[in-house]
Amino acid sequence: MVNEAQHTCSASSSSKSDGGSSSGSESSKDSSRCSTPVLDADRHERLREKMRRRLDSGDRWFSLEFFPPRTANAAVNLISRFDRMAAGGPLFVDVTWHPAGDPASDKETSSMIIANTAVNYCGLETILHMTCCNQTKDDITANLQKAKRLGLKNIMALRGDPIGEEWEEEVDGFNYAVDLVKHIRSEFDDYFDVCVAGYPKGHPEAESYEADLRHLKEKVLAGADFIITQLFFRSETFLKFMKDCQAIGITCPIIPGIFPIQGYHSLRQLVKLSKLEVPQEIKDVIEPIKDNDAAIRNYGVELAVSMCRELLDSGMVHGLHFYTLNREVATTEVLKRLGMWNEDPRRPLPWAVSAHPKRRVEDVRPIFWASRPKSYIYRTQEWDDFPNGRWGNSSSPAFGELKDYYLFYLKSKSPREELLKMWGEELTGEESVFEVFTCYITGEPNKNGHKVTCMPWNDDPLATETNLLKEQLEKVNRRGILTINSQPNINGKPSTDPIVGWGPSGGYVFQKAYLEFFTSSEIVTALLKVLKKYELRVNYHIVNVKGQNITNAPDLQPNAVTWGIFPGREIIQPTVVDPVSFLSWKDEAFALWIEQWAKLYEEESPSRMIIQYIHDNYYLVNLVDNDFPLENCLWQVVDDTFELLN
Amino acid sequence: MVNEAQHTCSASSSSKSDGGSSSGSESSKDSSRCSTPVLDADRHERLREKMRRRLDSGDRWFSLEFFPPRTANAAVNLISRFDRMAAGGPLFVDVTWHPAGDPASDKETSSMIIANTAVNYCGLETILHMTCCNQTKDDITANLQKAKRLGLKNIMALRGDPIGEEWEEEVDGFNYAVDLVKHIRSEFDDYFDVCVAGYPKGHPEAESYEADLRHLKEKVLAGADFIITQLFFRSETFLKFMKDCQAIGITCPIIPGIFPIQGYHSLRQLVKLSKLEVPQEIKDVIEPIKDNDAAIRNYGVELAVSMCRELLDSGMVHGLHFYTLNREVATTEVLKRLGMWNEDPRRPLPWAVSAHPKRRVEDVRPIFWASRPKSYIYRTQEWDDFPNGRWGNSSSPAFGELKDYYLFYLKSKSPREELLKMWGEELTGEESVFEVFTCYITGEPNKNGHKVTCMPWNDDPLATETNLLKEQLEKVNRRGILTINSQPNINGKPSTDPIVGWGPSGGYVFQKAYLEFFTSSEIVTALLKVLKKYELRVNYHIVNVKGQNITNAPDLQPNAVTWGIFPGREIIQPTVVDPVSFLSWKDEAFALWIEQWAKLYEEESPSRMIIQYIHDNYYLVNLVDNDFPLENCLWQVVDDTFELLN
Repeated sequence: MVNEAQHTCSASSSSKSDGGSSSGSESSKDSSRCSTPVLDADRHERLREKMRRRLDSGDRWFSLEFFPPRTANAAVNLISRFDRMAAGGPLFVDVTWHPAGDPASDKETSSMIIANTAVNYCGLETILHMTCCNQTKDDITANLQKAKRLGLKNIMALRGDPIGEEWEEEVDGFNYAVDLVKHIRSEFDDYFDVCVAGYPKGHPEAESYEADLRHLKEKVLAGADFIITQLFFRSETFLKFMKDCQAIGITCPIIPGIFPIQGYHSLRQLVKLSKLEVPQEIKDVIEPIKDNDAAIRNYGVELAVSMCRELLDSGMVHGLHFYTLNREVATTEVLKRLGMWNEDPRRPLPWAVSAHPKRRVEDVRPIFWASRPKSYIYRTQEWDDFPNGRWGNSSSPAFGELKDYYLFYLKSKSPREELLKMWGEELTGEESVFEVFTCYITGEPNKNGHKVTCMPWNDDPLATETNLLKEQLEKVNRRGILTINSQPNINGKPSTDPIVGWGPSGGYVFQKAYLEFFTSSEIVTALLKVLKKYELRVNYHIVNVKGQNITNAPDLQPNAVTWGIFPGREIIQPTVVDPVSFLSWKDEAFALWIEQWAKLYEEESPSRMIIQYIHDNYYLVNLVDNDFPLENCLWQVVDDTFELLN
Repeated sequence: MVNEAQHTCSASSSSKSDGGSSSGSESSKDSSRCSTPVLDADRHERLREKMRRRLDSGDRWFSLEFFPPRTANAAVNLISRFDRMAAGGPLFVDVTWHPAGDPASDKETSSMIIANTAVNYCGLETILHMTCCNQTKDDITANLQKAKRLGLKNIMALRGDPIGEEWEEEVDGFNYAVDLVKHIRSEFDDYFDVCVAGYPKGHPEAESYEADLRHLKEKVLAGADFIITQLFFRSETFLKFMKDCQAIGITCPIIPGIFPIQGYHSLRQLVKLSKLEVPQEIKDVIEPIKDNDAAIRNYGVELAVSMCRELLDSGMVHGLHFYTLNREVATTEVLKRLGMWNEDPRRPLPWAVSAHPKRRVEDVRPIFWASRPKSYIYRTQEWDDFPNGRWGNSSSPAFGELKDYYLFYLKSKSPREELLKMWGEELTGEESVFEVFTCYITGEPNKNGHKVTCMPWNDDPLATETNLLKEQLEKVNRRGILTINSQPNINGKPSTDPIVGWGPSGGYVFQKAYLEFFTSSEIVTALLKVLKKYELRVNYHIVNVKGQNITNAPDLQPNAVTWGIFPGREIIQPTVVDPVSFLSWKDEAFALWIEQWAKLYEEESPSRMIIQYIHDNYYLVNLVDNDFPLENCLWQVVDDTFELLN
């Protein structure tokens, strides 16, 4: 989604009418006002509309296919891959239906749950594959209902491979993909965008190429919105297929499926499954290097790039669909060489947007979950509406509890041994903890020579923006102000600024300085004295694990700490410090001390007791400097506090 | 209301808890979030709460009593007086019940409609008097229901004077004010704040002073929230009365009614009606100067000031209620000399807030009605909810039509002859019209030596802010860009700025430059060419009376053109350029050419035809410069347009 900001903006600022076209005074009586600011047109379009807009504009795009992994650990890795590959700007991803893997279940590895994660937690437009043979109508309906409930809006309707040797039609059963397309349209009307498969060489079981084309047309007539093809090895194959489709009246988009060859065995397996024949000229290259994975991959990338170039140069193709085999390197390389990997550093909002249709209007979040957006999405998944314009307007219910299921997604990507190296095999006191925080900030190795690349509150390395504050952060962490979240003040930088910018171009972004940290009650006592001097300037919330709460914030009112002013739009204020949700965040932030850190050590061990002591006695503090046009005073507040303590 | 901003802000930024007081983690599960930003606490408090807050803080305040006028013209003048006296910051105004004047009717001069205007159009907290004797229960209930429907929240419950000579109690009737208080509480529960009258010398018809005190206590026990007293001439009278009230257990606020003597005859009449005796020492001063109005008024002011000082110095009195007799000078003078006339130039929002309870959350309006706020309130009076946070969030219905009733309030305060002197007895061409606009901007007299102090689109002289643009405005009006609304760009001035500031202190206010004007199609053609150069920077809407509409604004999206950033709050964006409501405004703005200007001249007269030509052929244009941090480019746009035409 990231790379669409530019496009959206230029489209929306172009003239809507160049002369005397009449919009009519009737519209003054129209009460159906736009209920949300269209910061990002993509968020409000369905997939077929996005595709259509790209066809009309001639913009090139790509999409990525993944299959559900076999193990929970592999699922964690796949999700990280989604996040990384999202940066290149795919129009959508799709997740295959794996009948043997209990695909509609709530297992971490099911097709349904992987697709759910892609949509909701990674913010990716997602197509879920679904097969129909050997399933009852009720099962299929239930699966579609579940997909809808989870926020999935696109289905790839497939027949699937019949189980067993013999394939028999069932009367009134789902024998072909077209039956599933019809069923989706009859039961769910226009809710889903429906994709079907096309076979450039004809389906291996079809009577003939022509008969297969007729089947494809039936699927389209039954309501399919677009076609993704099976893989092929020569651009001519696809271009001929496309012309043949058009000749028999298929007018919907047809997207070529691209398979960069990544290895000898995966190619053989795929070819066997799909009953395709590998052209002799390719076999001739591959056979001699079949044991050299790197050589085969390089060749595969080369081959894919030149075939894609031919497709794009034909003028008939704008979008490419990649069979990734859940791998990252080959596909990314092909896209980069085609100039289609569009790593736009600009963001539609300062945080990653979820793709669930319910969350379309969402444009405000509390700052606290900045490093844990998936946790925020999980805990608000039951909300019926999301704040738009103002946090205070939200009538949303309380934050949900973190459950075990989700903890799977939250659990650190690093194994226990690695965490112990980073955070200390043995802690000798609170100062050992200060050192861990300091090393995380500075990037310097700890005294055992290990770099600290993650913390319980931050799964990832420091944000670029945080680098702006590095020097001060180092100083304060060393002295026991254990920072977990911060942002500098920004007084009107262009929205295209590579570090702090977000939203469409032509705008200006602003921030109030923010600092959030754990610290001891001794420091809090001094801090409160110092804060009296800053009473009119700094808002603070100070809370311990028991919920003792000290604040000077106006009752229950959120403080906007990030906002943007854009041409022709209302103001967007995507990040707030909200007193109510801070208390939910507090529970989560304190729990992470125990769940992620203390539990690395034996019960009753001194290390564990140090973390437990911090958990029980420290305060979580947040500070906002309201005077964003002046120099950030929060460092002065902290310096004054240390001075008072000396 | 204006003078409360300071107070609100300092209250909200003080520490809510100075130590370990527990707000409890329960509140993290509390879903009842603040649904609106408390920019102005007063808007969310009922009158008795405002009074209580002032009692607690020791802040002094005053209120003003008016009676309904006899003629429609007098009503127009009274409403202007409301607007002017609102500037001094009264806690409330009250409007007496005039049984002979059809008080509950929809007449322009009825008590009900005057009170309605005070609340809704002047934004004043208002008490409506209501009497009960000689009225049926049903009539009284209907009157109360009507008052509620109009947004009135406070009733002064009175018995009223029985009609005819003999006064007989009716069985089950409303014989005393206490019956009305009970009725209000039984039928409307706690909806209204109820005020009752106290008689510092005892009611003239009471058996005794003590008996009258007991009656007063009954009224309070029946549910009255506070007491306003009859006028009196010596501070001792009130202070004794107050002590006697407290002695028998009356604990609600008791507000002294102050009557600054303004003339011999008005004093005599009031004294006769209220059966009070004027002390000999006052008579001794007044009788010798009874024909010298100025001398009596000066003496009256002197007397009132010294009596009020004694009351305030007693420490028992914080609020003063003034019987104004619908006059301005004496009361204003007393208040100024007491230091209680608090003309705070700061505004809670850039526009005057209506006091209707439905409009409490309203904090966004289109910029178009900036000079016609009463028209805006009238046309949106049927809305069930008002935009809060964002204009786009409003689900409000269409704008109402301007009806004759309201045109009474809209009609110019100047008589036809005066308007003709200002706008020209005889127009000789479009240039004569250009000259009128130019003279309005410059303040210079027109060629016949008359100053132009109002225009059809602006009842009042130019806003101070507009002076910032005077030079450029003069230049463009002279050449046929007939400006009716404009604002300069502001890049973060303190919210306390005397010219452009609004909202609580400690904030920063911003504006995008705005320019709205009528102009010929020739100029529009050139302007459109010029605007192509400014495509990414300037948003425009260009529309003629037929509704032909040219714009480059993103579909239906409002553009925020005034916003403010405040400590501990979300962002307030009180003024937007909204494409949808612009088309409603267009109808009104074009109609004013005909209704207010063309109709000054005979039908078929050349002058009338000139205005009619402009109405039929000119365009209404608005321009927004989105680049608020840079120098306003709108003047350059206009200069470029003129250059293109040369």
